[in-house]
Amino acid sequence: MNACCMKAVVIPHVRGAWTVSQVAIPEPKHDEVLIKLHASGICYSDVHLTQGSLPGKFPQILGHEPAGEIVAVGAAVTSRTVGDRVGLAWNQRSCGRCEWCLGGRPRFCLHGISTGIEVAGSHAEYMSAPADATMLIPDALSYEQAAPIFCAGYTVWGGLQYADPKPHERVAVVGIGGLGHLAVQYAKAAGFETIAVTHSPDKRALATQLGADAVVESGAELAALGGADIILGTGNSHQAMVDAIAGLRPEGRLVWMGVAEDPFVVPARLFEQRGRIVASGQNGAQYLYEALDLAARGKVRVMEECFPIDQAAEAYERVATGKALFRAVLVM
Amino acid sequence: MNACCMKAVVIPHVRGAWTVSQVAIPEPKHDEVLIKLHASGICYSDVHLTQGSLPGKFPQILGHEPAGEIVAVGAAVTSRTVGDRVGLAWNQRSCGRCEWCLGGRPRFCLHGISTGIEVAGSHAEYMSAPADATMLIPDALSYEQAAPIFCAGYTVWGGLQYADPKPHERVAVVGIGGLGHLAVQYAKAAGFETIAVTHSPDKRALATQLGADAVVESGAELAALGGADIILGTGNSHQAMVDAIAGLRPEGRLVWMGVAEDPFVVPARLFEQRGRIVASGQNGAQYLYEALDLAARGKVRVMEECFPIDQAAEAYERVATGKALFRAVLVM
Amino acid sequence: MNACCMKAVVIPHVRGAWTVSQVAIPEPKHDEVLIKLHASGICYSDVHLTQGSLPGKFPQILGHEPAGEIVAVGAAVTSRTVGDRVGLAWNQRSCGRCEWCLGGRPRFCLHGISTGIEVAGSHAEYMSAPADATMLIPDALSYEQAAPIFCAGYTVWGGLQYADPKPHERVAVVGIGGLGHLAVQYAKAAGFETIAVTHSPDKRALATQLGADAVVESGAELAALGGADIILGTGNSHQAMVDAIAGLRPEGRLVWMGVAEDPFVVPARLFEQRGRIVASGQNGAQYLYEALDLAARGKVRVMEECFPIDQAAEAYERVATGKALFRAVLVM
Amino acid sequence: MNACCMKAVVIPHVRGAWTVSQVAIPEPKHDEVLIKLHASGICYSDVHLTQGSLPGKFPQILGHEPAGEIVAVGAAVTSRTVGDRVGLAWNQRSCGRCEWCLGGRPRFCLHGISTGIEVAGSHAEYMSAPADATMLIPDALSYEQAAPIFCAGYTVWGGLQYADPKPHERVAVVGIGGLGHLAVQYAKAAGFETIAVTHSPDKRALATQLGADAVVESGAELAALGGADIILGTGNSHQAMVDAIAGLRPEGRLVWMGVAEDPFVVPARLFEQRGRIVASGQNGAQYLYEALDLAARGKVRVMEECFPIDQAAEAYERVATGKALFRAVLVM
Repeated sequence: MNACCMKAVVIPHVRGAWTVSQVAIPEPKHDEVLIKLHASGICYSDVHLTQGSLPGKFPQILGHEPAGEIVAVGAAVTSRTVGDRVGLAWNQRSCGRCEWCLGGRPRFCLHGISTGIEVAGSHAEYMSAPADATMLIPDALSYEQAAPIFCAGYTVWGGLQYADPKPHERVAVVGIGGLGHLAVQYAKAAGFETIAVTHSPDKRALATQLGADAVVESGAELAALGGADIILGTGNSHQAMVDAIAGLRPEGRLVWMGVAEDPFVVPARLFEQRGRIVASGQNGAQYLYEALDLAARGKVRVMEECFPIDQAAEAYERVATGKALFRAVLVM
Repeated sequence: MNACCMKAVVIPHVRGAWTVSQVAIPEPKHDEVLIKLHASGICYSDVHLTQGSLPGKFPQILGHEPAGEIVAVGAAVTSRTVGDRVGLAWNQRSCGRCEWCLGGRPRFCLHGISTGIEVAGSHAEYMSAPADATMLIPDALSYEQAAPIFCAGYTVWGGLQYADPKPHERVAVVGIGGLGHLAVQYAKAAGFETIAVTHSPDKRALATQLGADAVVESGAELAALGGADIILGTGNSHQAMVDAIAGLRPEGRLVWMGVAEDPFVVPARLFEQRGRIVASGQNGAQYLYEALDLAARGKVRVMEECFPIDQAAEAYERVATGKALFRAVLVM
Repeated sequence: MNACCMKAVVIPHVRGAWTVSQVAIPEPKHDEVLIKLHASGICYSDVHLTQGSLPGKFPQILGHEPAGEIVAVGAAVTSRTVGDRVGLAWNQRSCGRCEWCLGGRPRFCLHGISTGIEVAGSHAEYMSAPADATMLIPDALSYEQAAPIFCAGYTVWGGLQYADPKPHERVAVVGIGGLGHLAVQYAKAAGFETIAVTHSPDKRALATQLGADAVVESGAELAALGGADIILGTGNSHQAMVDAIAGLRPEGRLVWMGVAEDPFVVPARLFEQRGRIVASGQNGAQYLYEALDLAARGKVRVMEECFPIDQAAEAYERVATGKALFRAVLVM
Repeated sequence: MNACCMKAVVIPHVRGAWTVSQVAIPEPKHDEVLIKLHASGICYSDVHLTQGSLPGKFPQILGHEPAGEIVAVGAAVTSRTVGDRVGLAWNQRSCGRCEWCLGGRPRFCLHGISTGIEVAGSHAEYMSAPADATMLIPDALSYEQAAPIFCAGYTVWGGLQYADPKPHERVAVVGIGGLGHLAVQYAKAAGFETIAVTHSPDKRALATQLGADAVVESGAELAALGGADIILGTGNSHQAMVDAIAGLRPEGRLVWMGVAEDPFVVPARLFEQRGRIVASGQNGAQYLYEALDLAARGKVRVMEECFPIDQAAEAYERVATGKALFRAVLVM
């Protein structure tokens, strides 16, 4: 291996194997930084992309939960410097000219560039990215802990905030997995009484350990406990979210954090409760900042399995088969 | 007919005929007023109740869009007096003891009493009702115009408000019927650019007359015009509402104003747009007050067909078969 | 003393002494309940009323923090029954006819009736009040603990809510007294990092005991700690609130909970921070419900001195001279 | 004059004269564009800066209401191209590393760079600016009309939005001048009933022409007309804003758009009305986008006096002495 080469997990074509290869280290553009990655979280969307259920382009290096240190900066970069510890979220660039870009909501740009979709992602030893798209990682937070916050943590914290929660409200978390185990912790960190909703008997004790004030199996059980004002719908079953609406309190909100494959049929009960379904992705830099801060202050801890990049295929397998507890992170 | 009798439209049993009968004039209780009705709007829920698709109890006098004048007050009534022009909305009483009653949201009381459901409604010459449940009708508004505001007008104005519209946003109205023809007018009265979405060629010109800035046939056409931030879902087709989501702008809200019979399947586009489904019924006295005020100021005019109470069966027929343009009102 | 008489603290004229007298037990009106009082909190506004710095009418029985049990109900009362444990807040009745009453915001009625102002208050063995104005007291909460929640607790919890606090925000409480010692507890109960701002060295340790994460002396010190997004301005010094603005974070809100006597001069820093001054009284039944609930669940505990009603003059003296720690409550 | 020189209005030192000089055309940095200016609005803050009542550094070229076309782009610029019609607002750059920059609120960065303060502004034939700080000007909007929107229009529209106005609310505008004449138009464009508050008899007719539904002289008169839910405080008198609070409706908001020199003493009435003082500067790119859009659609028209850059001193004089009706714009 020479100086201009690096290890990267390359997927040659849709449904191809995760293959560790030697590829060229990217050159940062004028406004970019070069990041030496130390950790890169594997998200379930990596599985969707690999399998083709989300559209990608191949060959590709996936990975949109990067954490590393800057080792070079482009000529136009003023806000980052070599040695900065950074990560970034899904959205890297946008056109800068459409209504959404001009109005400060570039996430809705139709020409956006996403990490690991239109450009190479973070399952590699290095990646380049626009300086402005990077976020500083708090000193107290390790790269391994930081990486999954850039997608999973950001998503659940942003989702909670997007539901506009009020003091004294109760939060339920549907699904105790990659997102859900963080959602319970974030909801507790924010001071809310929090109820976990899970069908898995083996996750009941875990949910309690994570801070849940109660654990139930269904929306009906949630209702019996008094219900929840906010239901954070994590996991990949719309049916589980819809079921939970049986436990939605009046004027409650179901936060829909990701598209699953089964149909999402709104029940009449949502109407009776004057409820809301709130679709929420990654909602703004402030929430990413806060999500990292809460992790740095020890209020939230990612449960994760770490794998050297050379074992990327094995790590992928754990995630794809739902065995990872709960995030898998490549370390470099 | 003697002094203690009145005409009323009595439905003897579920799926029974609307029959004008002589019944006793109700006695107002201590905290009630007796209203001599001058107008009583027929709402499509009256059809659902008659046909049994909404649960009711029979024999019953339906009607929850009353407008009339007070002719007697109970001993404990201090805020109303003989001669007051009043109407009232669906919710009359609640238990006063549950969390929702104590917390100022009696609409969610599990023991609420609704006009024309648990107690006799307004398709009659007189009705009694709690003084506190009545709303004064502005002087400038006729009884015939006021009556439909107590359900239809209140619902659409409250729904618009519940979506938290911001200046410069665009509103679309799905369905140009009993609610929709008011929704277009209310949205315009509030200053919003407003687009009507209707499949009926004969309603296109009408929608324009009502003030719509544009009329389209589908969500796709709505999208082509730039989309809407708020979609007011009136009418009895979830499919039409779901179709309209194709034209929902980022962070947009679909206001769901009533439960239809077809399944309501949330499309992935709602997620992509970070949108919301906002269920909304009658949302608070302030909005009823405002809805009446806008009508009194001539900003909104109900299109309606008036029928003497003796022709109640014919009026019902017009509503049940969708022929009424757009509200039918019994006058006494 | 015979059956129709009771002890009451009567103030004969403005600036008169608090005098325990025998007066007739009130007769509840049709829509009223008769409450046998067990506790009645003394609020600093009682001092203002006594001294004439707030307008009252005399002779009068003051007291607007009542807690007791219902012993009789008027003929029109359906939602309360003998034996109910209740209290009520300042606003009892309003005209029912103005824009504010019709629109569900009776607090702004120009003809409102307030407990202890236009009608006799709760410093007595009995009081009557409209059934609808009473709130049930949770079983787990004693009368002595409940009483001060009906004004002091309600005010601080409603004020916090009215500031629309977001998860991860920081709260500061200016003034550690009758309101402030509750504000610290309520802010912590809601999950916020909370900083007490007090000039009194002897209150520093206490504020920490109440749950404050930090205690500072001034807005400058608050700023040095990173500032606060929400400043709850309790106490009777506008100057202290204005000083605290030095520690207001961007887009922060100063909640103004009561009018003091010194001028309230807005500093330019409020503008630079794009901040807000939020005036807040008692903001809605939901917040009173929640404030009682949090106390019943042991999250908040009123620090109070209890006095038999016969020692009302002494209790008043403690409050008027600022010696009471922190609420004085008459018990009957 | 040669190719690398341009005319610019240079102020040699604080309280110095506005002097048209030949200076070097700036070189755009990597991430910057060079703008050939066609219009540059003069804002009253230019007077404050010139006179030293706002801190500046000299010699300086002022001007933060630029409108022109791009004639060159730096090497790292991808979102702008030669020929683009652009302007920009006050904030150009920030550190990119502090909590506020990382969290998407760079306006609060302590190391921000503002147009015409830390770097040369737009009273010149050319200026350079970061591409990302520029906003495209709608085709339908002339440079002369666009320029004042970048500060004055943005401020009033953002201020209205920041007050969170609801349909059916009433807006009052205090002061009919550079900001106020736009505020009336923007409030009307957003559909609100709008009342102008002005002491100048000669502005009454004008306010009506601009669309005001009524014109009053004082808060007391405003109250007599029913008051306003939102008061937009423009102009340079806190006393006028405070006076207007006499006409603030319950839960109303006074939007404080700029710091004046007289003390701002909050009246007790704000408390009684449970009102708010909302400080508001330039609140987010979305509002600038919308403000330009409304002007481009002809809903708002800046009243302005245009001066060739050679007459900058005269233009300044008009503004400084309050004679300009209402904005003065240099054209190049």
